[in-house]
Amino acid sequence: MTFSLLDFDTWVTSQLSTVEHALSQWVSPDAPAGLGESMRYAVLDGGKRLRPLLVLAACEAAGGHGAAALRAACAVELIHAYSLVHDDMPCMDNDVLRRGKPTVHVQFGEALALLAGDALQALAFELLTPGDSSVPPAMQADLCRLLACAAGGNGMAGGQAIDLASVGHALSEPELRAMHKLKTGRLLQASVLMGVACARTPLPPTAQAALAEYGAAIGLAFQVVDDILDVTADSSVLGKTAGKDAAAEKPTYVSLMGLERSEALADELLAQAQRSLLESGLPNVARLRSLAELVVKRKK
Amino acid sequence: MTFSLLDFDTWVTSQLSTVEHALSQWVSPDAPAGLGESMRYAVLDGGKRLRPLLVLAACEAAGGHGAAALRAACAVELIHAYSLVHDDMPCMDNDVLRRGKPTVHVQFGEALALLAGDALQALAFELLTPGDSSVPPAMQADLCRLLACAAGGNGMAGGQAIDLASVGHALSEPELRAMHKLKTGRLLQASVLMGVACARTPLPPTAQAALAEYGAAIGLAFQVVDDILDVTADSSVLGKTAGKDAAAEKPTYVSLMGLERSEALADELLAQAQRSLLESGLPNVARLRSLAELVVKRKK
Repeated sequence: MTFSLLDFDTWVTSQLSTVEHALSQWVSPDAPAGLGESMRYAVLDGGKRLRPLLVLAACEAAGGHGAAALRAACAVELIHAYSLVHDDMPCMDNDVLRRGKPTVHVQFGEALALLAGDALQALAFELLTPGDSSVPPAMQADLCRLLACAAGGNGMAGGQAIDLASVGHALSEPELRAMHKLKTGRLLQASVLMGVACARTPLPPTAQAALAEYGAAIGLAFQVVDDILDVTADSSVLGKTAGKDAAAEKPTYVSLMGLERSEALADELLAQAQRSLLESGLPNVARLRSLAELVVKRKK
Repeated sequence: MTFSLLDFDTWVTSQLSTVEHALSQWVSPDAPAGLGESMRYAVLDGGKRLRPLLVLAACEAAGGHGAAALRAACAVELIHAYSLVHDDMPCMDNDVLRRGKPTVHVQFGEALALLAGDALQALAFELLTPGDSSVPPAMQADLCRLLACAAGGNGMAGGQAIDLASVGHALSEPELRAMHKLKTGRLLQASVLMGVACARTPLPPTAQAALAEYGAAIGLAFQVVDDILDVTADSSVLGKTAGKDAAAEKPTYVSLMGLERSEALADELLAQAQRSLLESGLPNVARLRSLAELVVKRKK
């Protein structure tokens, strides 16, 4: 047990180092007039990189194509990073602190923040389509489709629109769940599905469905834990402004069902994720199991 | 001659009708909380659709795959539309009138305008990757790569960053050209290249290079004419605020070289575009020839 935990930590450290190196190479400072600099600021030296880890762990479980998975891992992180840049802007959450640093619009101005987010989204799709034979073309197309669907109007952006419209309104638990399923859940689930899409031979449909279930469960768990941490953690640990959801009268799991029941829900979703991994019938799911624990037990 | 002009008009009318229908289908009102509505507002019932026409004409010249070209035509228009939405926002150009209607942020608020732009970009890549066999997977990947590169930090977004940084500064003609090459040129050129990428059999490299040259020439011509129209046309004809570049102290071809020399440059670029078409050696370039004329002779 101790060995397997240590082993997971070693795996995480090694994967993170690969991802950071790749992001630093691919998010080049070349883009003109400060744009490259602002893009790098938004992406590098920060973040838990949960989504890249999910891609890489799912790829390992699926017996996947490493070069494709690294591109997918970085692409999904770029989408996440751009969404934070835009989300922090004054017309959205108007936040000044992110990952312990001034937000991009505070550092570079609103116009450049807007453009940096836009360019990061485009770069995600550029990474997925290398234009050589390093990734099979059909896999490139699959990865683009999964990412585009998860990011768009019926995914992350749609969830943000619901979030905007919900400020100051009472939401029921199903409504809150539907919002988060889009806002945070779709991209986390897509991370798993993109790892699966890197498989050299397609997985059986039952295994694919089980991993999709796993992705949905940890997607929701992530948000529940986020809501819990917004109440229980300090800004200094969180690296962003704590308590801001409550201050903004945003509906959260904690405001809706209280702290204790939120914590119970997070545990239940963790159990559900672990059951889905068992149901997948795949042998190499240890990383995915540990990542599910990480999502629920994290302190920031 | 008269017959061929008429023929072009008929072709344009028919292509536009196909594109409008496809856009209306693909930009669905489904996205939640007003997002779908704002996306449709940004895209439908307006615009010259020059980029889609370039994709479709280039596809015709290249002997291309019609279903792929229609998706590419709509995808490039979505990128164009999203860029206008973000460009009009208060932190950028702060414009209130576009295509004769209130801009998206005036109509729906800044936050929804930001999200609508983001979701339209994602949708562009979703359109290019239909997930069935209607477009060959390698073609899907090629189209995504061309569009992502043209839209990103070393394309359109990069050009906008230069544009931002240049307000109030004197630019030389080469600097202005470099800015517009990215800001407007890359996406117009990509429209041609995406049409070419729909070819059922790849074109000879010389023909590809010639069409890329054609795309570069009309890309620049488009911007020169835009600058001319900003000075010579009425807002009511233009459908957007005329004279705003001059008011914002933005460097333009007209401010740099005067109206007469700008008009001469536009004509020269038109001639260059037509030469490139000849050099391509392709037989079916009549549509591309007429589109080049349209770019330079347009009144709005």
